[in-house]
Amino acid sequence: MKKRIKVFAPASVTNVSCGFDILGFAIDYPGDELILQIKEEPGVVISKITGDHQRLPFDPLKNTAGVSLLSLVEHLDFKKGIEIEIHKKMALGSGLGSSAASAVASVFALNEILGKPLSKDELLPFALEGEKLTCGGSPHADNVSACLMGGFVIVRSLSPMDVINIRTPKNLYCTIVHPHLEINTADTRKILRKQILLADAVKQWGNVAGLVAGLTSGDYDLISRSLQDVIVEPIRSILIPGFHEIKNAAIDSGALGCSISGSGPSIFAFSKSKAIADKVGSAMMKALSTIEVEGDLYISKINQQGPRVME
Amino acid sequence: MKKRIKVFAPASVTNVSCGFDILGFAIDYPGDELILQIKEEPGVVISKITGDHQRLPFDPLKNTAGVSLLSLVEHLDFKKGIEIEIHKKMALGSGLGSSAASAVASVFALNEILGKPLSKDELLPFALEGEKLTCGGSPHADNVSACLMGGFVIVRSLSPMDVINIRTPKNLYCTIVHPHLEINTADTRKILRKQILLADAVKQWGNVAGLVAGLTSGDYDLISRSLQDVIVEPIRSILIPGFHEIKNAAIDSGALGCSISGSGPSIFAFSKSKAIADKVGSAMMKALSTIEVEGDLYISKINQQGPRVME
Repeated sequence: MKKRIKVFAPASVTNVSCGFDILGFAIDYPGDELILQIKEEPGVVISKITGDHQRLPFDPLKNTAGVSLLSLVEHLDFKKGIEIEIHKKMALGSGLGSSAASAVASVFALNEILGKPLSKDELLPFALEGEKLTCGGSPHADNVSACLMGGFVIVRSLSPMDVINIRTPKNLYCTIVHPHLEINTADTRKILRKQILLADAVKQWGNVAGLVAGLTSGDYDLISRSLQDVIVEPIRSILIPGFHEIKNAAIDSGALGCSISGSGPSIFAFSKSKAIADKVGSAMMKALSTIEVEGDLYISKINQQGPRVME
Repeated sequence: MKKRIKVFAPASVTNVSCGFDILGFAIDYPGDELILQIKEEPGVVISKITGDHQRLPFDPLKNTAGVSLLSLVEHLDFKKGIEIEIHKKMALGSGLGSSAASAVASVFALNEILGKPLSKDELLPFALEGEKLTCGGSPHADNVSACLMGGFVIVRSLSPMDVINIRTPKNLYCTIVHPHLEINTADTRKILRKQILLADAVKQWGNVAGLVAGLTSGDYDLISRSLQDVIVEPIRSILIPGFHEIKNAAIDSGALGCSISGSGPSIFAFSKSKAIADKVGSAMMKALSTIEVEGDLYISKINQQGPRVME
């Protein structure tokens, strides 16, 4: 048996416009790296964390990667010890599934080093254990599902868990701007209304239907027409300074659509070619700079693979 | 120019489970037949109506087929006269798009006899004019769209009108039971709550996403899991005696799912073969008979053609 493995788990975009809580996808970068080593002494130890500005706990019971790993160790009745290093390659609280990536990386790494006793589907509940820490008990499975399964996913149901991978057009590119602002996930959920108008819900599921049909058939125009969120984006965008300017810049530069990634502050846009996605990225960053906020820019296809072994 | 044409326009199932107001499809039968004749004397005359138990008005301004036809006559600036006969081959108020079929038949007939000056897409607004009569001003485009376009449709948006045809699996069969009960469309809309829980809406659009993905990829299991309506069916089913018994009979006989057609009282079920659809039909009719209600049974594939010329 190998004693050491290094893995990568990708960032993910969720709450894809009209698809609040149900649509997500993985991107090629950024993502977290995790090194897992098997030790003789039992127990899970987190020996090193980088890229977190000293914000993540080393106690495995308080760390998403630790919690996920412990749940899988218990399930597999693994008797040896495990030491992990977590190298965060993306900002915490960016709306790009940072905690999900660490949780996925940890269970993926253990499963790989043990010769894949479980399938990806079977790993999902363990990766979700870590997410419970950040979400306060009821994990939203979209980031973890997208990160773990790769590709574009529908989280049709949480109980029982039902995650479906759908096809997307080959040249669909995603441009992401992460403004250096901080937003608390719990707050962004609290400001949503618990009740919504049936008429708005009908518009939303009409767009969900159109978006899924557009993605699976490769109809860019339909994707573009369907990228409308009448329920969540109008409320959450209030918390993101410059959102409308950045969105308008993306659309004016040829993006198919643009919305909030996760609960923000990251903003994503779809384009039908790399060239347009680049142009859209420049325009979004320029709009961000006019409000004197710094940010990161990522341009990626839909990542079809999910986590991967690096070494 | 031909002086006389006879056309058929199919019945349609709408509010397809989770797809309230946005999903619909045409079936092979029943449907309405309409004979249109060009006359020298200007004006639109309805000379004969059969199969309606004397319930439909002969005044073109009060008849869905008449109103639709008049709107198209005006648009095309057609100067001659038109006489139509309407032969209803399905019950009024069945939840199978009876008025939509007559409206579609009338505009389709005129467009055909004139050598197709308009495309099907372009006919849609005129067919919808008739629906305004039944729906009191705000037409629900799903029946008209499904009937006119044929196939399975997403009505993504009403304004601007955006109707999308999606692929469905080749062996998808629909079993329909029309219990001989009468339900007023206006009442069935009134009993719906104007506000719904966001959590329920998320479940619903998760199922909409799953259903569209299942239909387009031919995944019968996914179709089956997604045929769940947590918002409208629980309320409207109260108005349909025996609904739950009939639905259970369908599911127990192997149907993929079962729900209300339109606003009822018709009930439809999907199956993945003709043999199962037949078995499901027998079980549903048996369940209906136990509550001593008579009914009609229809078993059909998704009708891909929409209206057609008979003579």
